[in-house]
Amino acid sequence: MVIEFFEREKPTPPADYFRVDHESLKAWVKDVFISLGCREKDSSVIADVLVSADLMGISSHGVQRVKRYVDGIKAGSVKPKPQIKVVRDSGAIAVVDGDSGLGHPTTSFAAELAMKKAKSYGIGFVAVRNSQHFGIAGYYSLKIAGKGFMGLTLTNSTPLVAYTHTVERYLGTNPIALSVPKREPPPILFDAATSVVPLGKIEIYSKVGKEIPKGWVIAENGELLEGDATVILKKIRGKEAAILPLGGVGELFGGHKGSGLAMLVDIFAGILSGSGWGAHVRYTVSDKPGNVGHAVMAVNIDSFMNRESFLDRIDKYIQEIKSLKKHPKAERIWIPGEKAWLTMQTRLTIGIPIHKNVYNELKDISKDLQIPFTLKVLKEKAY
Amino acid sequence: MVIEFFEREKPTPPADYFRVDHESLKAWVKDVFISLGCREKDSSVIADVLVSADLMGISSHGVQRVKRYVDGIKAGSVKPKPQIKVVRDSGAIAVVDGDSGLGHPTTSFAAELAMKKAKSYGIGFVAVRNSQHFGIAGYYSLKIAGKGFMGLTLTNSTPLVAYTHTVERYLGTNPIALSVPKREPPPILFDAATSVVPLGKIEIYSKVGKEIPKGWVIAENGELLEGDATVILKKIRGKEAAILPLGGVGELFGGHKGSGLAMLVDIFAGILSGSGWGAHVRYTVSDKPGNVGHAVMAVNIDSFMNRESFLDRIDKYIQEIKSLKKHPKAERIWIPGEKAWLTMQTRLTIGIPIHKNVYNELKDISKDLQIPFTLKVLKEKAY
Repeated sequence: MVIEFFEREKPTPPADYFRVDHESLKAWVKDVFISLGCREKDSSVIADVLVSADLMGISSHGVQRVKRYVDGIKAGSVKPKPQIKVVRDSGAIAVVDGDSGLGHPTTSFAAELAMKKAKSYGIGFVAVRNSQHFGIAGYYSLKIAGKGFMGLTLTNSTPLVAYTHTVERYLGTNPIALSVPKREPPPILFDAATSVVPLGKIEIYSKVGKEIPKGWVIAENGELLEGDATVILKKIRGKEAAILPLGGVGELFGGHKGSGLAMLVDIFAGILSGSGWGAHVRYTVSDKPGNVGHAVMAVNIDSFMNRESFLDRIDKYIQEIKSLKKHPKAERIWIPGEKAWLTMQTRLTIGIPIHKNVYNELKDISKDLQIPFTLKVLKEKAY
Repeated sequence: MVIEFFEREKPTPPADYFRVDHESLKAWVKDVFISLGCREKDSSVIADVLVSADLMGISSHGVQRVKRYVDGIKAGSVKPKPQIKVVRDSGAIAVVDGDSGLGHPTTSFAAELAMKKAKSYGIGFVAVRNSQHFGIAGYYSLKIAGKGFMGLTLTNSTPLVAYTHTVERYLGTNPIALSVPKREPPPILFDAATSVVPLGKIEIYSKVGKEIPKGWVIAENGELLEGDATVILKKIRGKEAAILPLGGVGELFGGHKGSGLAMLVDIFAGILSGSGWGAHVRYTVSDKPGNVGHAVMAVNIDSFMNRESFLDRIDKYIQEIKSLKKHPKAERIWIPGEKAWLTMQTRLTIGIPIHKNVYNELKDISKDLQIPFTLKVLKEKAY
């Protein structure tokens, strides 16, 4: 297989980044959580989710989150050794209680349970309550697609988004992640916040000094903010501004649809699961549990039709989309998940770019926890 | 109960409209389909879906569609007496073949089946293939909520929307309709096209002479069209332009998310069901069957938690949203489904406004089919 080198988030400027071998990064992250009292198995999952995000070019959800999780465990809001329990189990559905542990092991467990149920009943739906941040939603859907099922993962999150016709942070960025198996990689992976952008995007704009366009963020007085990302990020953090739902302000371009989709996620992941919703979902580092809710669905394709027919249909679908008349200014027609997959292939080969500030932060964590800092820095390769 | 008079789509100017009693309208629509050879039961469902759309203020999907359906049956692309069959039945899922009949009776059947499965397995998911246009997606979700379940209805539709970075009509407006029961009416009903607007909105703008804002429609050359709705509508119909996905052009405001959500609907409703997808979904009046695909899901709340707790949580959620800090220019904070419900209460009392052109079209249909034209016109009441 010829690798097409591509990075969704290019390190800019390259001199500010270290290229780190993903295996060494994963091993180190695992050591961090073991040293904090997490089970070895759980630590492996947490490390795999975080490093997968970096491999896929979603650095906002990558190892830069290690500090937040470490701080959460230290603050006592995150339990290092949660007792994950199935609290309801009824045919094709179940409810899992995450006991305030990090969401990664709990949701991996929920995904396994959803697939088991899908095998028996055609579909499996598992809601998760009393959880914490679980990294990228796409990770769990992708694991499900890897086993041949269609996967759908939802989660609510801390309040950042203004419900339509309001101006304060109430809804989470509440992502929806759908995966669909294909004959050849990559599988379809649609993983999107129901807000116009996730917070991570604004953080990246702030880091690289890009201007925020009008239509992403609304101030308390109803003004649409634009310009300096660092200033805007500060206002969001200070609760003087909120991210807009997909579709933007008001109803003219469908802001009520983005708002409604965020509600849909909140209802399935938060309300139906018995977890927190809206502003009741708390940040990882807190004096109380996060109360984050998730939902995972697995669909057994074989129950619906012959698998080969399904794979044929998906292949045709993708071919047709790729053959559509391209926008004159577009470089390429992308299939959901393609950018992440190409970035992953590239970074498996040349390493993950870690910003020097994040690198130093990880180093400090290592020192603080008295574990060896075993990241393997690779030489930057031109491609 | 005091009725708050409200109409989502106000008849403008009122002189161009007849106010018609909904019962007489429903009875007449039923007669139309019986006269065309449809079963009495199926005709009742078709009439109920169409008149419900008018009652809810979604006139694009109301009785103005009667002509299209009549023409479909006459053209032979729509079967008046389809043999609806369950072709796969496996635990919590099923696949239903609609035998190219109108989608309304088939999807009502699918919704019943989904609820039956939800009762046994906690969740029920029914995919429908070889169907035709089914009216408003929200109708089926609302019926499901009326029985105490959460409902989710999806459908694909004829190609009108440009996939991100492309400029031609390929995706349908592929709506998502979620319903959630509440203690007091209205239930939550989120029913939204995954395009920035449905075609019906552009048709209404054309009818009332409103200008289309920049960001709804893209021309073949990549230009964003704005202005005269009649001109733009003609370009869409002539395949010189396409509706943009929710989030608009490109990726800056999340157009790839709207596109991805439309794909999600197409994959569940079209590909997984064994029906048509993308440009393979045909218009109702054609030389071939429409090949429309739907999906209906019912969720048994009792399987997840005590029903009273759930209803408490939903009530709190709504109260919290209603109490958020309102945008200074917004009249009111709306909950999904509230506008439709208020419009319905209003129109159940004062009648449905039918545009004189539509009224005359219905009259012509009556004449053509040699059935009595029994619409009861009410006196316009001020409110």
